[in-house]
Amino acid sequence: MRSYLECIPCFMSQALRAARIAQLDDEQTLKLLRIVGGKIKDIQLSDPPPKTGKMIYSLVAEISGKRDPYEEVKREHIEFALKMLPFMEGYIRDAPDPVDAAMRVAAAGNIIDLGARKTVENVQKVLEDALTLKHRRWDIDQLKSVLADAGKILVLGDNAGETVFDFAMMKTLRRVYPEAEIFFSVRGGPTINDATYEDAVRSRIDEVATIISTGSDAPGILMDEVSAEFLEIFNSADVVISKGQGNYETLNDAPRPIFFVMTVKCEVVARHLNLPEGSSVLYFHPGGNPSERMTD
Amino acid sequence: MRSYLECIPCFMSQALRAARIAQLDDEQTLKLLRIVGGKIKDIQLSDPPPKTGKMIYSLVAEISGKRDPYEEVKREHIEFALKMLPFMEGYIRDAPDPVDAAMRVAAAGNIIDLGARKTVENVQKVLEDALTLKHRRWDIDQLKSVLADAGKILVLGDNAGETVFDFAMMKTLRRVYPEAEIFFSVRGGPTINDATYEDAVRSRIDEVATIISTGSDAPGILMDEVSAEFLEIFNSADVVISKGQGNYETLNDAPRPIFFVMTVKCEVVARHLNLPEGSSVLYFHPGGNPSERMTD
Repeated sequence: MRSYLECIPCFMSQALRAARIAQLDDEQTLKLLRIVGGKIKDIQLSDPPPKTGKMIYSLVAEISGKRDPYEEVKREHIEFALKMLPFMEGYIRDAPDPVDAAMRVAAAGNIIDLGARKTVENVQKVLEDALTLKHRRWDIDQLKSVLADAGKILVLGDNAGETVFDFAMMKTLRRVYPEAEIFFSVRGGPTINDATYEDAVRSRIDEVATIISTGSDAPGILMDEVSAEFLEIFNSADVVISKGQGNYETLNDAPRPIFFVMTVKCEVVARHLNLPEGSSVLYFHPGGNPSERMTD
Repeated sequence: MRSYLECIPCFMSQALRAARIAQLDDEQTLKLLRIVGGKIKDIQLSDPPPKTGKMIYSLVAEISGKRDPYEEVKREHIEFALKMLPFMEGYIRDAPDPVDAAMRVAAAGNIIDLGARKTVENVQKVLEDALTLKHRRWDIDQLKSVLADAGKILVLGDNAGETVFDFAMMKTLRRVYPEAEIFFSVRGGPTINDATYEDAVRSRIDEVATIISTGSDAPGILMDEVSAEFLEIFNSADVVISKGQGNYETLNDAPRPIFFVMTVKCEVVARHLNLPEGSSVLYFHPGGNPSERMTD
């Protein structure tokens, strides 16, 4: 997905939010906003938003002087989510359709903004709400039909913390489809609160899947940046389940079929999907619609 | 009021919104956002936000090639508001306290975002809602006590359209306090949808007040830009009633008493006033608290 004019003020808002989470002081934050402002002239609207996101988060790291300014925040989110794991697993166990329930848990992980919650109790309440949501688009039948014959499943990870929800989801897939090999992708380096290898291990993902790196520290999947190893698995997987909006923004016109599981967090993506902002979806993209960028 | 870090992304959002209202095409809008982005490095946080607002709206005018890119929008808003005038006047006539009712009408004018409404019926409904609002801060008794002895009243105007609400308010003041002379200030030149001389006349304000110019085209009252004539009236008026957030942002620490009538439209001003965003207020600022800027 290209960037839109609306993305430009949003990049500035993202920079400010990132500065706050990384606990930059006011002077550092002003410096960041000034640099990002000056770089707006270089943004190509033909590029997907995570390309600019990557630039912003590199600057946050540089200005903060920390390799991973979100390390502590991510660790907290994972700890929070691990405390909710028994609830998630109970929900899946008690559900009439465990695969559907597992995907709902994975979607709930993307709905919940752990950064904004203060207590596990709150998050459990929000999780309950998320799980009872009527989804406007929920392509579970298509997903189950391809999972039935899948030898190789690739899950594209998103935020740290959400990874624990993905652990519960993949644990279920392993149980229901024991023949399938599952891969889980993490970012090649720290970027915002996106999961890295360490975050995935902390979320116990190594127990249920082979963790692979995208080879890029963009908060999405930029095809001209990912490693050959990632690309091989991406292309050969029988099923790709993509978590979150950053991965959607970079893969929405991918040539291969993808199941997007995410919450729609801005008006631009809402317009793209023709769904209201705030919707949580399991959206089947059939592929076969390569953009110029993808076929380069 | 100084600018805060949160104002910086907001300036970009304002630029985009301004471009839309001025009907710039996508290429012109991108150009605007790039220029504004580059100018972020020059923004002094010690300056009040309307100083940056002025810069943005000058750029919109320059890029659009129109002296007043909002002319048509302002005219529509005034026409809309004039159709609601009988309702406003009826509301004031039927109220037990006409001055209180008149100030509520003036506040409603700032609540209503005429740009977002499509029909007069809608606006009338919103006006009814606005008038029944429980105000969190409503210093009407202080206002009435100074109005009782006032020889000279200055109303600082804000948006075109809102001016019709101000007309109804000032018409009431003239009736209740026939001895007082009323002045109404407009911007020295077009800036956003702020009222200029022509807009005020279209709103019939010349029937109830002497229209004066601030002498500056900032969307607020920048003391180092206003004309000597304006300053003389501002300093000598017995009562100053200031409409809208832009005037508050530039006058919140003025050395003289001011009654601010406005809706709190952002978190920064909400924090400043210690009132929730969206509040509509009649706020008495007693003065005697000059900032460095004001005493320069």
